[in-house]
Amino acid sequence: MFRVGVDLGGTKIQSVLLNKDNRVLANDRRLTPHDSGPPGVAQAIAGSVTQVIKKSKVATADVVGVGVGSPGQIDKRAGTVSHAGNLPDWDQTFPLGIELAAQIDKPVDLGNDVQLAVRAESELGAGANLNSFIGVFLGTGIGGGVIINRKEWLGRGAAGEIGHMIVNQDGPSCPCGRFGCLEAYAGRAAMEAQARAWQDTGQKTILFDIMKRKKRERLTSGVWAKALKKHDPMATRLIDRAVTALSVGIASAVNLLDPDGVVVGGGLGIRLGQPFLDRVVQETTPLMISRERPPQFAVASLGDLGGAIGAGLLPLD
Amino acid sequence: MFRVGVDLGGTKIQSVLLNKDNRVLANDRRLTPHDSGPPGVAQAIAGSVTQVIKKSKVATADVVGVGVGSPGQIDKRAGTVSHAGNLPDWDQTFPLGIELAAQIDKPVDLGNDVQLAVRAESELGAGANLNSFIGVFLGTGIGGGVIINRKEWLGRGAAGEIGHMIVNQDGPSCPCGRFGCLEAYAGRAAMEAQARAWQDTGQKTILFDIMKRKKRERLTSGVWAKALKKHDPMATRLIDRAVTALSVGIASAVNLLDPDGVVVGGGLGIRLGQPFLDRVVQETTPLMISRERPPQFAVASLGDLGGAIGAGLLPLD
Repeated sequence: MFRVGVDLGGTKIQSVLLNKDNRVLANDRRLTPHDSGPPGVAQAIAGSVTQVIKKSKVATADVVGVGVGSPGQIDKRAGTVSHAGNLPDWDQTFPLGIELAAQIDKPVDLGNDVQLAVRAESELGAGANLNSFIGVFLGTGIGGGVIINRKEWLGRGAAGEIGHMIVNQDGPSCPCGRFGCLEAYAGRAAMEAQARAWQDTGQKTILFDIMKRKKRERLTSGVWAKALKKHDPMATRLIDRAVTALSVGIASAVNLLDPDGVVVGGGLGIRLGQPFLDRVVQETTPLMISRERPPQFAVASLGDLGGAIGAGLLPLD
Repeated sequence: MFRVGVDLGGTKIQSVLLNKDNRVLANDRRLTPHDSGPPGVAQAIAGSVTQVIKKSKVATADVVGVGVGSPGQIDKRAGTVSHAGNLPDWDQTFPLGIELAAQIDKPVDLGNDVQLAVRAESELGAGANLNSFIGVFLGTGIGGGVIINRKEWLGRGAAGEIGHMIVNQDGPSCPCGRFGCLEAYAGRAAMEAQARAWQDTGQKTILFDIMKRKKRERLTSGVWAKALKKHDPMATRLIDRAVTALSVGIASAVNLLDPDGVVVGGGLGIRLGQPFLDRVVQETTPLMISRERPPQFAVASLGDLGGAIGAGLLPLD
């Protein structure tokens, strides 16, 4: 029962090959191409799948299926992905599942990237011993998930949007078009936009120097981590703001749901790790109704591979 | 299977007698005594139970049990209520279930007042056709409940505190000791405190005149309704503020849980009714991720009796 799981993101494509015990036998990571539209992305995924199978030394014939976690709107039955704003030229609907299945000659299942990362943490990661938890995944945006009785609660399909809990209605504009969402404070894209705006008014920061030195075009999680380590005042201020907003959003969600735990993941959450989480816990605790018995807080333990591992569970359904 | 349900509140004791189809055969309403501590309250409940049975003309022997919904911390097994802040001299633990059972010679079950009101709406009221909903109950404070797959989700016991979702961390102080909770804007006690503070600075309002004319000591839901009808500027301003805060809190909860519905109840919610709910819907909709397919909004349909009816379900468990 070997399977490949692929986490498709705006920046990178991460693939893993899992054995029957869901252990990762091999992985492949490559940049998401931004110059050839959805067909180019499909081709890059096919290349990554072929490569991860090759690396694992498992016979291609023994791989039963491929799961892909994607942003945007997923139609699992039709095998399509629509409106994936972070992906290149992906405003319309593209038959990713069908294209990919044709190229690699394997069954392909699609799922929502964040939902799969939350599911992986619930089945195999930091949430494995929690009956209920709130997953908060910090990346370009903020995704989330709600686990109730060990199963992801999807509501009418779109539950888990903790990034669009409103932390302060008079707050900054959010990439979603509203104001003062958690993501407007603690999503990487929003933090970068704020940093650029402040730099344009003459405020100093080493964030963009680090970015250039790392040959990046965006403020990646690694750039933020480095700037914090160097005590850059603007990075520190933006992360402080993000911690405060996260505390308000998480406390509100905890007061509403009283879950067993809170799992913080995503590229930025994992990169900043336990010290960052400790600060979030410290600011969240006084805002909780049940502060004398707080939920367990944990960093997502599957790390960067969580999304791909979650995708690799899809062929088992 | 006749049962009595009692809703014990800071202001009033509401009792109903239910038949096997959960129809209300009789009801009794009286003020909660504030001069004789918890024993006085137990005695008043016993009086109300006796009265509602008498009114219903059901033989006392045919009443199988009594359920009581109470604020504060409930220990169902021990039959005790602790820390019921809204009740007189109830900072400690009082064996309400045992006292009452001794006085009326019937089995007594205790439950949380708001949880029971939410349960009643889910089983018999506005939520009866909803697989999932968020209940928002506006009274002295703001209580709530989360129905998931037709069952109340209690988390580790304290879920549903939508009143303590944080709408604005820099907002006014909340009776819970934190700042900017939804309840700090839209709970009756907080609105009254704000009205008094504004009046003390010389701002005019007819709120307290209406209160006195109605021989009340607090700004009851009826007082608010009347002041709004008379276009009192301060009442209008405070209710506008409450609507906005409710919209932010409800939208955050909806974005997190994507439920089938939202049910607004409690004394104030029911008194202000559909026109008030319409305003909440209007302000909430633009803040929702899935605004093109909003959840169903409804006023709690069991009205003032919901809490007592929910309590009357307890002896069936």
